[in-house]
Amino acid sequence: MGTLLRVDMTTKQVNQESVPESYSGLGGRAFTSKVVLNEVNPICNPLGPNNKLVISPGMLSGTKAPSSGRLSVGAKSPLTGTIKEANAGGTTAQKLASLGINGIIVEGKPEDGKLYLLLINEEGASLIPADDFKGKGTYEVSALLREKHGTHIGLMQIGPAGEMMLANAGIANNDPEGNSSRYAGRGGLGAVMGSKGLKAIIIETKKIMDAEVANSEKFNEAAKKFAKILLDHPVCGQGLPSYGTNVLMNIINEAGALPTKNFRKGRFDKANEISGEKLAEVAVERGGKATHGCHPGCVMRCSNIYPMPNGKVCAPVEYESAWALGAHCEIGDLDDVAMLNYICNDAGLDTIEAGGTLGILMEAGVIPWGDGKAAIKALEEVALGTPMGRIIGNGAVYAAKAYGVTRVGEAKGQHMPAYDPRGAKGIGVTYATSTMGADHTAGYCITANILKVGGFTDPLKKEGQVDLSRNLQIATAAIDSSGLCLFVAFAVLDNQEGLPTVVEMLNAKYGLSLSVDDVLKLGQQVLRDEREFNTRAGFTKEHDRLPEFFTDETFDPHETKFDVTNDELDSVHNY
Amino acid sequence: MGTLLRVDMTTKQVNQESVPESYSGLGGRAFTSKVVLNEVNPICNPLGPNNKLVISPGMLSGTKAPSSGRLSVGAKSPLTGTIKEANAGGTTAQKLASLGINGIIVEGKPEDGKLYLLLINEEGASLIPADDFKGKGTYEVSALLREKHGTHIGLMQIGPAGEMMLANAGIANNDPEGNSSRYAGRGGLGAVMGSKGLKAIIIETKKIMDAEVANSEKFNEAAKKFAKILLDHPVCGQGLPSYGTNVLMNIINEAGALPTKNFRKGRFDKANEISGEKLAEVAVERGGKATHGCHPGCVMRCSNIYPMPNGKVCAPVEYESAWALGAHCEIGDLDDVAMLNYICNDAGLDTIEAGGTLGILMEAGVIPWGDGKAAIKALEEVALGTPMGRIIGNGAVYAAKAYGVTRVGEAKGQHMPAYDPRGAKGIGVTYATSTMGADHTAGYCITANILKVGGFTDPLKKEGQVDLSRNLQIATAAIDSSGLCLFVAFAVLDNQEGLPTVVEMLNAKYGLSLSVDDVLKLGQQVLRDEREFNTRAGFTKEHDRLPEFFTDETFDPHETKFDVTNDELDSVHNY
Repeated sequence: MGTLLRVDMTTKQVNQESVPESYSGLGGRAFTSKVVLNEVNPICNPLGPNNKLVISPGMLSGTKAPSSGRLSVGAKSPLTGTIKEANAGGTTAQKLASLGINGIIVEGKPEDGKLYLLLINEEGASLIPADDFKGKGTYEVSALLREKHGTHIGLMQIGPAGEMMLANAGIANNDPEGNSSRYAGRGGLGAVMGSKGLKAIIIETKKIMDAEVANSEKFNEAAKKFAKILLDHPVCGQGLPSYGTNVLMNIINEAGALPTKNFRKGRFDKANEISGEKLAEVAVERGGKATHGCHPGCVMRCSNIYPMPNGKVCAPVEYESAWALGAHCEIGDLDDVAMLNYICNDAGLDTIEAGGTLGILMEAGVIPWGDGKAAIKALEEVALGTPMGRIIGNGAVYAAKAYGVTRVGEAKGQHMPAYDPRGAKGIGVTYATSTMGADHTAGYCITANILKVGGFTDPLKKEGQVDLSRNLQIATAAIDSSGLCLFVAFAVLDNQEGLPTVVEMLNAKYGLSLSVDDVLKLGQQVLRDEREFNTRAGFTKEHDRLPEFFTDETFDPHETKFDVTNDELDSVHNY
Repeated sequence: MGTLLRVDMTTKQVNQESVPESYSGLGGRAFTSKVVLNEVNPICNPLGPNNKLVISPGMLSGTKAPSSGRLSVGAKSPLTGTIKEANAGGTTAQKLASLGINGIIVEGKPEDGKLYLLLINEEGASLIPADDFKGKGTYEVSALLREKHGTHIGLMQIGPAGEMMLANAGIANNDPEGNSSRYAGRGGLGAVMGSKGLKAIIIETKKIMDAEVANSEKFNEAAKKFAKILLDHPVCGQGLPSYGTNVLMNIINEAGALPTKNFRKGRFDKANEISGEKLAEVAVERGGKATHGCHPGCVMRCSNIYPMPNGKVCAPVEYESAWALGAHCEIGDLDDVAMLNYICNDAGLDTIEAGGTLGILMEAGVIPWGDGKAAIKALEEVALGTPMGRIIGNGAVYAAKAYGVTRVGEAKGQHMPAYDPRGAKGIGVTYATSTMGADHTAGYCITANILKVGGFTDPLKKEGQVDLSRNLQIATAAIDSSGLCLFVAFAVLDNQEGLPTVVEMLNAKYGLSLSVDDVLKLGQQVLRDEREFNTRAGFTKEHDRLPEFFTDETFDPHETKFDVTNDELDSVHNY
């Protein structure tokens, strides 16, 4: 049905082939995880020739389905050693799907140590030497390539961190304005791309919502219904479009689950200073935008554009980033937070892990707590490739080893995002049991724990958290395969028409007759594939645990410990 | 029967108790591994309060059994994450055993971040504040403590690397002349000691061969017989006493199994320049010693004293060190090798891992291949605690991650010693399947592979290697428990009277009536304990593998790959 690009970086050959039977009908995370399971030696070195970087637009990407522009990227992770799927917004998924490309598999490793660009257009695909881009930041590369290939291009790229193969390097995707800041960020996939010598992928086409649809009439009808479902929901239709993801800062702080000073407290006294409300006010005042869509067709438009006093613009400053680079480090100056975010975007780093790492350096006494300027100076070393830059660029667990720090909020080697697992125990279950380390998006229990979306499960009690996490992990694996933004889940969880409408869109696009149950089974299969890879890579239930201090220590303001038992954690993947 | 010291670094209390039933009759590795299995949470952070540092003299230490002065140290390893037992010569095992101390368990973690000394003498044991020793190298600390407590003290200590909790920090033990260079080196046990805030353990007694013996007449008779068995053997009685361990340099080079330039070749054109023969010549010429015993009562005296032109003295330069800091890095200047060794000893680093790490920096282009002076400069950064120093001090896998290097000869995160697993496949089996990462001493197949001791198993063929490694791993676990130096194995393997005589000594010492079979069963039990800990820590058979390049690449001069299959590797621990 679609096309698969195989890019061999050893021979520099690009082959275009039909999607083989074994991957047929899969998209997004279902596609990338299946290819990694089938084709990657699970005990390979993640930065060696035997790892593969797999890219796939979601099953609905490139259509008029609202908020369906998510791209999946998969590989064996250099950060966690597990399978990894990271997904991102921006225009790249839509453009690939519009060209009929279901997947890209980048394999091998160049022996010449040189850099290349992969140019994809309506005529085909080819590799172009790109050593002149060596060491360049993502902003400059984006500007240069838009100048050369046109502002309509889709662009995936790595920064200097990815070129140096640092384990916290992500892959940036551009938004319609060319900001290269929509990151498939977590798990070090940028380092895998760097190990392949691939600096960027240029998708040179004006097409963006031109993916084939089997039954357009039915499809358009379902898509319209789905847009209404999103717009009718208070989070998707009002909260996110007003203040973006950072609307969560005050909410999570109020709930006492905002990890502050490396998980010592659940509230940050300067939370409001770095909140979505504050950001909207300052951004608009300075000519930026409080709300912005990362790809055409998004109705939630949760992104923003934040101009800084130094003339640079960070677009967007997301909640997770503002937490990691802010509250976690006790940095309460929004301009410092935005500048740290900007440096991450330019060097090609995941902001959550980078903020986590800066917190570790504060824990070690290398940077004073709350010192935004010192943090900026340290983070700038990453792109310079100094020894300190390499320590920072390899993530929190790595930096902790450099300084003998044992207090690291991580699971399977990946730093936790913006929710204390003692203050929202459902997300703690997800951190521990996700197939790819501490990841909020793998099963976002903040819904029922704090936002009271899809019901309510008391965040401070362990009861119900395992079921909640299990159901969300399955649903998420399906959504990540569809190409829909995970944020549609808020509406889908609260509206009984949500999931059937997603299935209607899938059926109309592919001429199928799937049921809701089929889609949930797909989600389960994705998780099974990922867990199978991890088992073959040597992971066991002993890795599905949180660090000792979460089970040993209470934290302010909640006198709770993470008390979900090992047996309970081990039951998450019973389905 | 004996005494157990429990040192709680949280409360600063030292308790003296009788050895409990569960550890009774155990010594050395059998003791340390049992305590780690029973008392350490296998998923704890190795540098946190829940890890324990366990120290135990061997079952025959402190007696007149020849070459029986080995000390065992155990913990969860910060380098590999597995259980770890490292053992060392020097006088500390003899002195502890002479005081009737069977074991020391150091637990907890001081919250004050301060340093302490543990002083043990005939009156008891106590902790002494030692912040004035902060950052001091082992040579200075040894001199200061010998001045204060007398030159007869036994001394275990960490250098700055251990204080910084770097994963390649070892624990130094002194020889009779006060050289603090007998290292329980591998696996980062010095970092565990550093995490406990314990700078040194002083054993303030003149006693050295005063351990209780149940039947002295029988014991002395057996000990005399055993000394003769050792002296009659060509390796134990001639090779080692003439040129020390570094007699191997030319032998392994000739066999084409000397890993050179990071495992690219099996021969180093300057091997002779850093060999034992050369070392003996230069050492004697400069007033040093070609042969030297690390503890009283050793008949093999494989150690040496090497004066350098800069006035410093390195004692000893061992084969594994000369290989790691020499051939592996293509450094062919013996004075440079000795100086690198000296820096390791002073900073408190394991030489094998340190040399491995310098080779990685050469692989990365940070240090030129073969540049001894540049390597010295880089290694000096460890004690300074610079970011580069911390990268080096955390070992080869860590340094490789800093620079995106995938070619690392390691197993379970620990760098390989001085034998290419393709050129001596038995040792490759040991590297892969040992309970504590790549470790030659865990099952030293070089015996039958190259030295033709205990029979001959063609090093380049896979046939017979699994059986060889299995038998040696079991025998080694028993020998490491006895307190005998592993080098007695050369004689024991070739002389049918060897093992029965060891058993005679054990029986006479403890008033028991063990058989040879009982002692081998003890070895099996030690391995089972260690594997049980590792299983609970999340290790599986997938971790019993060698890096891809050993199975994918041949090397000069042997066109062989490591071809022992996974199933074969998985059968090593069938006993």
